Amino acid sequence: MSPVVNGRVLFNSVPEGFPEPGKTTVYDTTETIDPDTVSLDGGVLIKTLELSIDPYMRGRMRPASVKSYVAAFEIGKPIQGHGVGVVIRSENPKFKEGDHVDSNSFEHKNLIVTKDVTGYEVINNPHNLPWSTFIGVLGMPGKTAFMAWKEISQAQKVPPHPVERTELSNFSEPKGETVFVTTGAGPVGSLVIQLAKRDGLKVIASAGSEDKVQFMKEIGADVVFNYKTTKTTDVLAKEGPIDIYWDNVGGETLDAALEAANTGARFIECGMISTYNSGFSAPVHKLFLVITKSISISGFVVGRLMPKWNEEFYKTLPPLVASGEIKHREDIYNGLETVGDVILAVQKGTNKAKAIIHVADD
Amino acid sequence: MSPVVNGRVLFNSVPEGFPEPGKTTVYDTTETIDPDTVSLDGGVLIKTLELSIDPYMRGRMRPASVKSYVAAFEIGKPIQGHGVGVVIRSENPKFKEGDHVDSNSFEHKNLIVTKDVTGYEVINNPHNLPWSTFIGVLGMPGKTAFMAWKEISQAQKVPPHPVERTELSNFSEPKGETVFVTTGAGPVGSLVIQLAKRDGLKVIASAGSEDKVQFMKEIGADVVFNYKTTKTTDVLAKEGPIDIYWDNVGGETLDAALEAANTGARFIECGMISTYNSGFSAPVHKLFLVITKSISISGFVVGRLMPKWNEEFYKTLPPLVASGEIKHREDIYNGLETVGDVILAVQKGTNKAKAIIHVADD
Repeated sequence: MSPVVNGRVLFNSVPEGFPEPGKTTVYDTTETIDPDTVSLDGGVLIKTLELSIDPYMRGRMRPASVKSYVAAFEIGKPIQGHGVGVVIRSENPKFKEGDHVDSNSFEHKNLIVTKDVTGYEVINNPHNLPWSTFIGVLGMPGKTAFMAWKEISQAQKVPPHPVERTELSNFSEPKGETVFVTTGAGPVGSLVIQLAKRDGLKVIASAGSEDKVQFMKEIGADVVFNYKTTKTTDVLAKEGPIDIYWDNVGGETLDAALEAANTGARFIECGMISTYNSGFSAPVHKLFLVITKSISISGFVVGRLMPKWNEEFYKTLPPLVASGEIKHREDIYNGLETVGDVILAVQKGTNKAKAIIHVADD
Repeated sequence: MSPVVNGRVLFNSVPEGFPEPGKTTVYDTTETIDPDTVSLDGGVLIKTLELSIDPYMRGRMRPASVKSYVAAFEIGKPIQGHGVGVVIRSENPKFKEGDHVDSNSFEHKNLIVTKDVTGYEVINNPHNLPWSTFIGVLGMPGKTAFMAWKEISQAQKVPPHPVERTELSNFSEPKGETVFVTTGAGPVGSLVIQLAKRDGLKVIASAGSEDKVQFMKEIGADVVFNYKTTKTTDVLAKEGPIDIYWDNVGGETLDAALEAANTGARFIECGMISTYNSGFSAPVHKLFLVITKSISISGFVVGRLMPKWNEEFYKTLPPLVASGEIKHREDIYNGLETVGDVILAVQKGTNKAKAIIHVADD
């Protein structure tokens, strides 16, 4: 085989507000590679199949001097994220040709040669699920939802702080605690909704389009609304108080949740997308309520929960996905050249579901 | 005995900012009572000895229509708080003449006749400690510090997230985790400092006067500063990161603690005095850090912790106070007529230590 173009998505400049396709990141075709002859130096050659585009990636588009929990992207180098690929050649005994692998630091390029295989794991796929599944519901978003729900929610089928809920009189069975899930149609939120329903809870869920609202209803949320057309405070005043808050938004929505919280409420801080394009700052005014209501607010990073929950995750979730008991949606885009636009869509919330870049067929 | 004047402190009007003595509360001498003949109707007659003035009382000075975790004071009625008294006469078999009792809803008056004895408990005082002790270090402030520290701090003598601390090279022994205690000279904070030192931690503590700073040093804090003359962010940048934050302040100080927090930090939300005289609202901007640093922020109300921790509290603390191993300070004012001024002093932080109203001798 002769050399082929090795397409790459490079980090080009630090954005001030929203990332700009072609400026923040650029699609580059200047590199070539010969897959048959490229030296592996004891490493592996991986063909990229599927890449994940996630909200948190905005946080890596910062000056290298600013510290955070994940490294900043390097100017001029490929951006990275969660991905799935197939091993084409291997000089590392841990991997063999045909193995499918995933990693949280998959470079955004067609072909990857790497000696350092830290973070690459062979995927066990006994249910023959599509590889994109391992980006979404069985990938980082799925792990995020599952592990933080298990670790922090303390979901109670019988509420320890029951409240009079006359508006629930039309339900035929008694309800457990109430959870409010933001970005409930997203890959994380939609799994949280389904885990909460399996735990017997009443689920209130919000999203930003009618299509997303419809999807949240389909997967079982009891109360769904479009936060762009309905005020969150109004819905929570009517359907609350809430015992658990799954926060992907921060800012005003977090204040609304504090107002609507029941005594002893648990807030699971997964993300604060309202702050990502405004310097990671959005004022929250009602924190005093954490005292009067004995609320706990817990932040987490999924990587720190993996050692504890990985085994239970892979035991529990793949069979439920294979049988269709857990539903999920994917929003698949074709080719590395779409990455810049998809990153922006995810920051603005205009994507329809878990955003996946399909880079190559298996 | 003929009728005597029964002095009372009445709630007179809802303040907008700081409470005003003589306007928010008034000292009233229009009621008389004959202790020998007043009808008890199956209840008790209690002589008030000591009353506690606490920051949280500002929260009860609100319109009755605004709900919160403690009831609003009633206009025209005596204000209430933690107090200690002695039973003068009793028609209730639970109490006998000479019993000393405390309650969190002690009315601010010289003599109390009550049939409803909910919340009144006989004080067990085997070490013959002064009754004022049961207002401060063995009263609500002491319970607040002890119970929340036990419940939430998870203090580690060997830090799970060790950091390079070159500035500690002059310490001869290795240090445990680091805690930052605000209002560290107050009745709650000063006990937190001592509990943290007993747990082997490095303690950073702040207060608002040189006298208070000196007291924090005396009770063992490693790093002390006056937040009015030294910037909190500067001290924390040099002496942090912090693993535990004892918050009595909220607002900007809470933001500074978020900036200085270590991975996995626990924030114990005891109070937010920076918000009490500005509508219980002070913006916090850096909450996104709870995610990147896996911070948990826990609010509590001491009453909800009592069932779990009361026994250990009374077993542990009184002997340590009696032996002098746990130090405490009291700021004693004489007579109910001083209550309005002392409430204001506590809101402004101009009192020197735990504010106690000495109402009558035993």
